[in-house]
Amino acid sequence: MHFQLASVIPVLLRTPAVLDAWLRDLPEEWIMATEGGESWSAFDNLGHFIHGEKTDWMPRLRIILEHGEDRVFDPYDRFAQFAISEGRTTAQLLDEFATRRAKNVEDLVALDLQPADFARRGRHPAFGVVTVAQLLSTWTAHDLGHLRQMARTMAKRLREDVGPWAEYLPVMNE
Amino acid sequence: MHFQLASVIPVLLRTPAVLDAWLRDLPEEWIMATEGGESWSAFDNLGHFIHGEKTDWMPRLRIILEHGEDRVFDPYDRFAQFAISEGRTTAQLLDEFATRRAKNVEDLVALDLQPADFARRGRHPAFGVVTVAQLLSTWTAHDLGHLRQMARTMAKRLREDVGPWAEYLPVMNE
Repeated sequence: MHFQLASVIPVLLRTPAVLDAWLRDLPEEWIMATEGGESWSAFDNLGHFIHGEKTDWMPRLRIILEHGEDRVFDPYDRFAQFAISEGRTTAQLLDEFATRRAKNVEDLVALDLQPADFARRGRHPAFGVVTVAQLLSTWTAHDLGHLRQMARTMAKRLREDVGPWAEYLPVMNE
Repeated sequence: MHFQLASVIPVLLRTPAVLDAWLRDLPEEWIMATEGGESWSAFDNLGHFIHGEKTDWMPRLRIILEHGEDRVFDPYDRFAQFAISEGRTTAQLLDEFATRRAKNVEDLVALDLQPADFARRGRHPAFGVVTVAQLLSTWTAHDLGHLRQMARTMAKRLREDVGPWAEYLPVMNE
């Protein structure tokens, strides 16, 4: 099996510090910028990260370990961040995410999962059987995917300002 | 004019800390992963960031301020990072980038550019007339574009490991 817990944990542990270095005290115009329409700002992404810590990754891991394929995961609300972040500051969200992520990774390590555990199976509401390895890989890739989304969203604020250089910046055309 | 120096400087100043929080002591398999073929690793991106600080952004700004449209910018070598980073560690590259970026932003602030300066014009070797505002916006967007590239590259290491979740992770299909 390709999956290695010791490889994904360093990524999971770093995400709060990456977000902190990037967003804390950054001017609001960057934090609140979207790509238009229903697209998400960095602020929305932060709320989404927190929601994942509360209801998605570790809760689903525990469902697999306790119930296997017998209990379908609760569906994940991909819009809950709007309730989580309402009336709160970026600093508060950064702090909450850092605390929840550190605790969740601590809990994950404390489970002391063994190689056979990573092949244990649960049931996803949309696509059926999934494994512990797939869940933990997705947790990690999901972090990276949202970092990418935030970078793209912030870059596009400058779409007009870069003038002819847009041609050399693939991020502007995504 | 949309461009605001006070808006882009906080982004430029944060990039070294973002990279540091993300990459320092991260296992090598993440730092060296590419998307295959000639695509760049996070390590290659770091060398590219350093090369930009040495030869691209501030040197081009000085060419505009000193020579205007009379002197075409030196072409930018988008592959110089392979020479810069050869035989060096990630930690060394992070340190060098942080030092160079801090110095360049300090120099930029010391220039005390006034609103009229942002409209001053230089000449790009490929697409002709560009302005100071466009150059400084591109410096900033270029940072964000490479953060996005690094996140995508690292996420794709997990392309197979996430199993059916790939469908919910747009980053896997870019």
